[in-house]
This record gives sequence, C-alpha cells and structure tokens, in this order.
Amino acid sequence: MSKIEIIETKERIVADNDLEAEKVRQKMKEKNVFLVNLMASPGAGKTTTLVRTIHALQDTYRIGVMEADVDHDIDARHVAQTGAKVIQLHTGGSCHMDADMTHRGLDRLGVDDLDVVFLENVGNLVCPAEFDVGAAKKVMILSVPEGDDKPLKYPLMFQVSDVLLVNKIDTKEVFDFDIERLKNHVKVLNSTMPIFELSALHGDGFDTWIAWLKSEIEKWRNA
Amino acid sequence: MSKIEIIETKERIVADNDLEAEKVRQKMKEKNVFLVNLMASPGAGKTTTLVRTIHALQDTYRIGVMEADVDHDIDARHVAQTGAKVIQLHTGGSCHMDADMTHRGLDRLGVDDLDVVFLENVGNLVCPAEFDVGAAKKVMILSVPEGDDKPLKYPLMFQVSDVLLVNKIDTKEVFDFDIERLKNHVKVLNSTMPIFELSALHGDGFDTWIAWLKSEIEKWRNA
Repeated sequence: MSKIEIIETKERIVADNDLEAEKVRQKMKEKNVFLVNLMASPGAGKTTTLVRTIHALQDTYRIGVMEADVDHDIDARHVAQTGAKVIQLHTGGSCHMDADMTHRGLDRLGVDDLDVVFLENVGNLVCPAEFDVGAAKKVMILSVPEGDDKPLKYPLMFQVSDVLLVNKIDTKEVFDFDIERLKNHVKVLNSTMPIFELSALHGDGFDTWIAWLKSEIEKWRNA
Repeated sequence: MSKIEIIETKERIVADNDLEAEKVRQKMKEKNVFLVNLMASPGAGKTTTLVRTIHALQDTYRIGVMEADVDHDIDARHVAQTGAKVIQLHTGGSCHMDADMTHRGLDRLGVDDLDVVFLENVGNLVCPAEFDVGAAKKVMILSVPEGDDKPLKYPLMFQVSDVLLVNKIDTKEVFDFDIERLKNHVKVLNSTMPIFELSALHGDGFDTWIAWLKSEIEKWRNA
C-alpha cells in the first residue's frame, strides 16, 4: 500500500471563514473540481460510505480524498486501497475543518489531476456544521443506531446539509428506528433536502444515492 | 410532567479552566455531592443509560441531572420522568461543557438537597474530552454500532475517562464488533480503566456497573 501523506492543519484564526470558503469555492470552480464535505457522528459509517461511493464513481471521475481526523490515519489507509489520491489531515485537536484548513489541504493534495474531491470531516454533529469549507455540496450521514430524534438535538447540521444519507438502514428493526418520524423532523429544518436510505456495508439503496450525486456533479460542471 | 428549567450557559473565556474545575471539585466535596461527567457520541445511549442508572440509585441517593445540549430539551423531559431534579443547559452552539459553565449550572440546579449529580455532556467524542468540568468521575459510553476502532480515532476521550461503558452490547453480532479488539486498543491508552459491557435498553450487565458506581460513590464520600 502506498504511504499516506499526513498534513498537520492546525486551526488558524482566520478573520472571515465565509470569505475564505468563497475563495475555495471559486478556485475549485475554476479548476472544475467538485468538492464534497462529508459530515457525520463518529461511527456513522463515513469511511465505508466513502469507499463504496468512490468505487461507484471512479470509472467516470478522477477522485481525491482528504481524511480529516484529530489523530491517526487508519481511515486514510483504508480509503487509499480504492486507488483514489488520498491525504490525511490532522486537525491538531480541533473538532472540525474550516475553510482555511481545507484550502491548505487542497493545495497539498493537488487537484489538477482530479474531478471530484471528498473531504471526510471530523466525526462530530456540532462543530463541522458551523464552518463552511467551500464545498460544492455538503453531505450528511446519520446512522440508524443513533436514533430518529437527532434532528431535534443537532438541528444546524440538518439545516446546512444538501443531502442526508440514512446509513445502516438494514438495522432499522433492531433499533426501532422510525424513518417517517425522522423525515418529519427533518422537514421542519430543511424541507427540500433529499433523504436516501442505504447500507454502505451491504450496498442496499446505493444506486439511488450515486445517481443523485452524479447528476449533481454534472449539473455543477455545466453551470 | 413538571416544567424543565432551561439555562443558557454560553461559553465565556475563562483564563484557566483547570483552576475553575478544581474550584468546582472542592465545592462539591464540601457539599458532599458526587458529580459525574457523562460523555459519548450522539446516539450512543447517554440518556437511556442515565435513566436506568437513576432508577438503580434513587433508593439510596438523591439525584440531580444537568442535561447539556446545543439545542432542545427532549432529553431533560425524558430524564425528569424519573423524579430526579433536572435542569437543561443550552451551550449556545458550543460542542462541550467547561468548568465555568458547569459551575453556573450547579448553582442554578441547587445541590444542597442532592447526593449525586450527573452532567450529561454534549454528544461528541472530541471537545468534551478536552475540558475538565470538576467532576469526581468521568464516565464514557461507547456504543457497539460505532465500532471497536474508536480508541484509535478519539484517543483523548479514552485517556481521560475513569470508566468505559460499552452500550448496545446485544447488537455485537449485527455489527461484527470485537470486544477483545476494543479492550486491546483501550489498554494502550488507559491500562487500568474498568470496562463494563451492558445494554441500557434491556438492562443486561447493569448490576456490575451500578455496583462499581455505588462503591466509587462510597469511597469518595469516605475519603
């Protein structure tokens, strides 16, 4: 397996994160690179979802990945097995990525040979929601074992996301998870957000999510 | 159901969190109140564990609870049904409690008629680990669906905690969760930390955890 580059992207105080995010967004637009900000709780299945998504996209697009973690690089090593171009970002204890850290990460990754870049954010439902990193799309994963009440407790994450993937859907019965209750909670916060039910481990429901993602990438490229 | 008091405990910049935490710890010692800092990911089962723990303790001790959340008060309303004295703390977007916020919460809760107070921290494996709130014991919950690799990714939480509850243990088979692998990861970070396997929903393994907790409360009261 190729060695993973580890970048220390400690948080700097940046005057205006939104301004920096806009710079990232424009730069990626110029380079025709579709940046995805992938956010979820620890253990929701971000990496498994990402690996399966890369496999589904990599015949069509050249894929890059930035794995943001407080520590370690197990996810990056796992993702690198797909053949995608991967770097590991260490946030120096910070519980989220911001636009400046993302910008520096993208510069180190190098995007000239890429079409789509996934930023796997730190596992957390609070802080990552507060920081626009300049992505074209924000993808949130909620896993069934976390419960259908999570929109009530972490509303901002559901408000800012562009799509919600409900992962580990095959365990719905085990956890008495009511998908309709979840959808009703989400509707109040983000009435138009698409919600896809899937199992990243087994592949159920993946086709619909991948079709949506491909269509969003194409819309964005042609805009 | 009684109305839940909601306190806005926005984070203030406090020069020295550790100093403030020591103040909280001394004050609680003087008042003979055993403060527990309960930490976990969103959806790991903090509230369910707390409710069952309160039921097991409330014949012996007078229980208070501070529910810390970014938003909402569903957990506080749920916990209040036990008859415990409960207040809701809103952290104003902050992803953790600090010692100053805890101190103000305890003052508002009022502890003169209490023996044990549980602080249910914000659902998060990163930030709460970094802030000593002045508790007598730090209790961490990891739920089986989050995976047995979490100590590698969130080491600090495992390092600072005094006890680890592995919740939703009845779903071990569903998630291919290897408890021995988890224990080996934990041992490197915190070699003496007790690990209890339990199901907060069904009650499996609860007796051992409660016996440990009662013994710790008594040791602390007699110290």
